[in-house]
Amino acid sequence: MPLPPALEALVRELMRLPSIGRRGAERLALHLLESPAEQARGLAEVLASLHSEVRRCSECGNWSAMELCPICCDPARDPGVLCVVEKPADLWAFEEARFFNGKYHVLGGALSPLAGTTAEDLRIEQLETRINEGHVREVILATNPSVEGDATAHYLAQRLAREGLAISRIAQGVPLGGALGYADAGTLKLALEGRRSFGK
Amino acid sequence: MPLPPALEALVRELMRLPSIGRRGAERLALHLLESPAEQARGLAEVLASLHSEVRRCSECGNWSAMELCPICCDPARDPGVLCVVEKPADLWAFEEARFFNGKYHVLGGALSPLAGTTAEDLRIEQLETRINEGHVREVILATNPSVEGDATAHYLAQRLAREGLAISRIAQGVPLGGALGYADAGTLKLALEGRRSFGK
Repeated sequence: MPLPPALEALVRELMRLPSIGRRGAERLALHLLESPAEQARGLAEVLASLHSEVRRCSECGNWSAMELCPICCDPARDPGVLCVVEKPADLWAFEEARFFNGKYHVLGGALSPLAGTTAEDLRIEQLETRINEGHVREVILATNPSVEGDATAHYLAQRLAREGLAISRIAQGVPLGGALGYADAGTLKLALEGRRSFGK
Repeated sequence: MPLPPALEALVRELMRLPSIGRRGAERLALHLLESPAEQARGLAEVLASLHSEVRRCSECGNWSAMELCPICCDPARDPGVLCVVEKPADLWAFEEARFFNGKYHVLGGALSPLAGTTAEDLRIEQLETRINEGHVREVILATNPSVEGDATAHYLAQRLAREGLAISRIAQGVPLGGALGYADAGTLKLALEGRRSFGK
């Protein structure tokens, strides 16, 4: 049975979202249809204004309501340490953990020949400008522990290398609370290779 | 770190949808932000027009673009057999299976003292009107195999009982392809109690 056109249109739009299939989209659409119309309208309004209300921070590339995001504006944060991440969500994860007091730089992705993402597609020039103009002492490469993330970190380590700038990569190994018996071979290899002397 | 207000507003609206938590809502919101603005606007448009474009079929209660849904308008469907379901999604499931040629009646839910759903909240009067005015020979109670669905079926079986009207309940037992070893005790009990003679 064909759905009413407006319902079918909603299902198709919802299916464009990540990890939502036909069944899930139908379920969401029915929920919205069975809820008061205000809910669908409220969602429609925030969606319609999303792209005009949220922009990239011109300094670090994080999503922001203003020209500069709250982190870049914060005088209490150390501008000498830059944590380089792929996406704003990675930055949020660090912020939620509440232990990093430096600033960030969001690349906008990772190098990926398969996906056609080259160095020009990432915010690397802006990163170089920040390093050259600011008082950056250390760059922490916090790209994902994936083939693309590692390749991006290696590329950046070479390209950013200069006198007086420390460049580091976040540690890779077994995660806190992880069971060794379930760890994959690659993670175990990295955990062994990255071993540190006791007491250090 | 607080999100930009427009992004936070979108996350909160998305969290009102079923089975979408904070993390999932953030992921969807970021996807929409990183996609071309047309996608968010397209979704906003179909959401804004949803409740004005889709209504309940005045006959069966299914969602419909017109006064009557395609099934109620279809002269090839047998109006003598009514399949009574809780929700339009249940009707869609029967329609997808493509073997039922009667018509439907959507109750809009099931009796549930805990949720405060009483007989007056369901489309039972409309069902009685259809039975009294039409040429209905059989009513198939296809409410969910749950406490509420069973209670609703029992209530309807008593309330609808009249001369010349067959009332049945869909069979309950082990599902096709299900493994007996994983079936719960209630399902196994129903499967045994509902056993049928071989060759019947």
